[in-house]
Amino acid sequence: MSVDFFENNYQVLEQALAAAENRGYWSPYPESPSPRVYGETAADDGRKAFESLRDSDFPLGVSGAQGSVGAERSPFGFDLGIRYPRVAVETLVQQAEAAMESWRDAGPKAWVGVCLETLKRLNARSFEIANAVQHTTGQGFMMAFQAGGPHAQDRGLEAVTYAWQEMSRIPEQADWEKPQGKHDPLRMRKRFTIVPRGVALVIGCSTFPTWNGYPGLFASLATGNPVIVKPHPGAVLPLAITVQVAREVLQEAGFDPNLVQLAAHESNDDTASQLALHPAVRLIDFTGSSANGNWLEAHARQALVYTEKSGVNQIIIDSVQDIKAVARNLAFSFSLYSGQMCTAPQNVYVPRDGIQTAEGRMSFDEVAQALAQSVERTMSDPAKAVELTGAIQNEATAERIDAARALGLPVLLDSRALEHPQFPGARIRTPLLLQAEADDECIYQEWFGPIVFVVATDSTDHSIQVAGDTVRRHGALTLSGYTTDESTAEGMRKMAERSGVSLSLNLTGAVFINQTAAFSDFHGTGANPAANAALSDSAFVANRFRVVQTRWHV
Amino acid sequence: MSVDFFENNYQVLEQALAAAENRGYWSPYPESPSPRVYGETAADDGRKAFESLRDSDFPLGVSGAQGSVGAERSPFGFDLGIRYPRVAVETLVQQAEAAMESWRDAGPKAWVGVCLETLKRLNARSFEIANAVQHTTGQGFMMAFQAGGPHAQDRGLEAVTYAWQEMSRIPEQADWEKPQGKHDPLRMRKRFTIVPRGVALVIGCSTFPTWNGYPGLFASLATGNPVIVKPHPGAVLPLAITVQVAREVLQEAGFDPNLVQLAAHESNDDTASQLALHPAVRLIDFTGSSANGNWLEAHARQALVYTEKSGVNQIIIDSVQDIKAVARNLAFSFSLYSGQMCTAPQNVYVPRDGIQTAEGRMSFDEVAQALAQSVERTMSDPAKAVELTGAIQNEATAERIDAARALGLPVLLDSRALEHPQFPGARIRTPLLLQAEADDECIYQEWFGPIVFVVATDSTDHSIQVAGDTVRRHGALTLSGYTTDESTAEGMRKMAERSGVSLSLNLTGAVFINQTAAFSDFHGTGANPAANAALSDSAFVANRFRVVQTRWHV
Repeated sequence: MSVDFFENNYQVLEQALAAAENRGYWSPYPESPSPRVYGETAADDGRKAFESLRDSDFPLGVSGAQGSVGAERSPFGFDLGIRYPRVAVETLVQQAEAAMESWRDAGPKAWVGVCLETLKRLNARSFEIANAVQHTTGQGFMMAFQAGGPHAQDRGLEAVTYAWQEMSRIPEQADWEKPQGKHDPLRMRKRFTIVPRGVALVIGCSTFPTWNGYPGLFASLATGNPVIVKPHPGAVLPLAITVQVAREVLQEAGFDPNLVQLAAHESNDDTASQLALHPAVRLIDFTGSSANGNWLEAHARQALVYTEKSGVNQIIIDSVQDIKAVARNLAFSFSLYSGQMCTAPQNVYVPRDGIQTAEGRMSFDEVAQALAQSVERTMSDPAKAVELTGAIQNEATAERIDAARALGLPVLLDSRALEHPQFPGARIRTPLLLQAEADDECIYQEWFGPIVFVVATDSTDHSIQVAGDTVRRHGALTLSGYTTDESTAEGMRKMAERSGVSLSLNLTGAVFINQTAAFSDFHGTGANPAANAALSDSAFVANRFRVVQTRWHV
Repeated sequence: MSVDFFENNYQVLEQALAAAENRGYWSPYPESPSPRVYGETAADDGRKAFESLRDSDFPLGVSGAQGSVGAERSPFGFDLGIRYPRVAVETLVQQAEAAMESWRDAGPKAWVGVCLETLKRLNARSFEIANAVQHTTGQGFMMAFQAGGPHAQDRGLEAVTYAWQEMSRIPEQADWEKPQGKHDPLRMRKRFTIVPRGVALVIGCSTFPTWNGYPGLFASLATGNPVIVKPHPGAVLPLAITVQVAREVLQEAGFDPNLVQLAAHESNDDTASQLALHPAVRLIDFTGSSANGNWLEAHARQALVYTEKSGVNQIIIDSVQDIKAVARNLAFSFSLYSGQMCTAPQNVYVPRDGIQTAEGRMSFDEVAQALAQSVERTMSDPAKAVELTGAIQNEATAERIDAARALGLPVLLDSRALEHPQFPGARIRTPLLLQAEADDECIYQEWFGPIVFVVATDSTDHSIQVAGDTVRRHGALTLSGYTTDESTAEGMRKMAERSGVSLSLNLTGAVFINQTAAFSDFHGTGANPAANAALSDSAFVANRFRVVQTRWHV
């Protein structure tokens, strides 16, 4: 390797190791899109770079392509017109296997070095990626920048950090000397080689292609495995740019760029299942529906499968200091990217006889109204609102709002279409708030999108019991509780730990249940049906490589 | 907890952590059964303790038993007559779940403390366990003592060590402070709770009930999971003693002894599958046949399944310094416990045009004869030989020798029955050596027992290729190579790393391919079909617990 990317980036890795250990706040990738941080022309350059990619062939420089594919349309109302090389599944796998040969011998420092350098360069292209994320996922620009750029890079770096931590604890060589009483000791030398599992597959989603794609991509690459990135046909560009950057770094480091390949494909073809069932594919990272995730877990038996699927995220309101602060926080969470987040809350449990506040008792209806009014206020200025909601990625999500309305539950706040001042064709919807009872079966499934049920329960104990059962049966990535009573908080925590979901208590400020911070918050627990892994921990990386030892007498 | 078992045993844990890091020789449990180590009366006391258990009800003090079960017969020719409480599957699971409640809240130090103390007390009962292992597995006494006692305890401690390493890196609490420019920083406190997966099942085997059982048992218990130990009906006693010791420690520590339960059952009933498919069972450790292991992996989908199955272990002879030293080492490996080890070598590849030695060229036939003669010499004094071979655990293994003989391959050395001077009823067989060709398909399956094929190949390159293919297709726990040429050694190592099997080079002294040392050698790689996990590494423990966090503003 002519350039030592490991050495060049070692300082960041060292800081990342420390951050993962103390779990305080840390990020090497600034989340502020300010010109003071990224440079005066960065925003403009990024937009122009994005524009220049439109209506042309994406320059990926791949081998083995047969024609091209691409039909992305911005949820803000225009076609991207970008064409990606189409490479047959068998070709992708063969190229990955061929590329693995020299990669495996390069060892952990080379693998990690390439990953760190790739992340650094991705960070430099955060504005371009932000545009790409915005116009594939429908996220508002600020979220597209932060979640699609620096925060995704954080999660990628976190995976690399854990991978390095696990690999670096295996000594390259050891001397073993066993005493034999009066005789000479037995002496052996042992060499420990970290070996990759094989070809890795990353199956991207349409809403957070980079944030959800980077952990698996970098965890597999950092442990010596070649990676095939299969993007969602509706959100190819952010991952195409990512693959492009990784290939550029690999090439500079003297490796075969086919260690990271893009598997762009037509929507609804069988590329995903062909890849997932290929005997050479030994690692799969998936984000998407429970149906597809469960199918992978059941059928891709030749591979280790890491899934993040769907769930029912819940909020328990027991008692509050200031209902307005609570409602503001929740209105933001309901509206943010129109609930198209795996962490977005859906069911809000409130005792039917009301809750205690610092200003006295509030009835169930008053709580429900406070939430509805806060959402309405948040949505009152369309120009501001659309920055928060972004656009609806998929028409099916817009239709789901209609289906929820048709359930016949009392409507607390109806969903409206909003006009985007800049993008008249954008598909934008405000949150729908419905009132429900705890025994309405329809609320115990995921209603992906801006759909919220305010659910009357018999008591907070009942809320806790219902929430726990729901986590165990249907899975959840987040749980939020509001209470001013310590023993109730303790009860919520006990339930969360027993059902296996992380809990946020009394969020009223600028921290939202939808968001987790790399190096500090685990994303998911891997302990309930919503996900079989957490981002990131040792378990997420430790089985992506194996150790093969050679021993001999000395 | 009235006694602090963690604090009391911390020094051992600290040493174990260091040993796992540098992978040199280390063990806290002396492998020598010398009276100077274990005490003048230890051997006698152990034998008497074993004798006192015979023909009676094993004192386990369990709840929920309905009658008893037990039909163990020593491979040395007598019935043990020990009856174990029979507890219904549903009762076992319910008791495990009930016991988990207070255990989970006790946390990692309590879990690890109980494990460390249990191992210490198991060590003190090594002689009793040695008798129990000898008269269930058929191992000779020395092996039963070492592998069944201290070495098994080493492997148990190793699993606890990795578990502690992974758990202790998660801080109990963290403060997170995110700068907000001119505004006050966002401040949150986060609590991280390590939570168990659920009920763990350990499925024991008939040949190494403790050595193969302890890693899973202690990995699961140390990470907060209650464990149900399901012994092989032919080798219950060693695990019954283990369960007894663990329950005694748990009780002293103030926990429910049902955290470790014994699931003794009739041979050929469906206890194993009932337990394995129970929705509450979330972790399974299995050692046994590939058929059963593969079935578990495919069907026990609610659980994480760690398997060690069968494989074809191989030896490649390319060139040697001293054929006698090689043959002595191999004869020992073929004879040791009559090849009833998952690590025992089966196929020996020798180029048909012979090999180079320090004393000149040797033909294939001369190499084959040297091996046969060395085995014959090793078996020449029956009184000594039976200590090495032990007895055949299962009649099916004795029958397998006949089936191998009936393959019609040239016999290099026939298997004989030996008389045991002390146990006239013992089922003892010397190794059978057959000559084969690389295209004899029959050699590419496991012939469990003292059955060895000396296989003629076209060249060492051919041997390497055949060995690699066999590892990939059929799995292997060990691979051994003999060569005086460095580039050939390199070729063997490359093949080993690519097919995923650990390699021993030029073993001629008192280290044998069958044996691995805890804290230094990984047992298995988890990278080929013989096992999906290695003993022990981070991947073996890191997914047995999960982390649930609670965060709130401060």
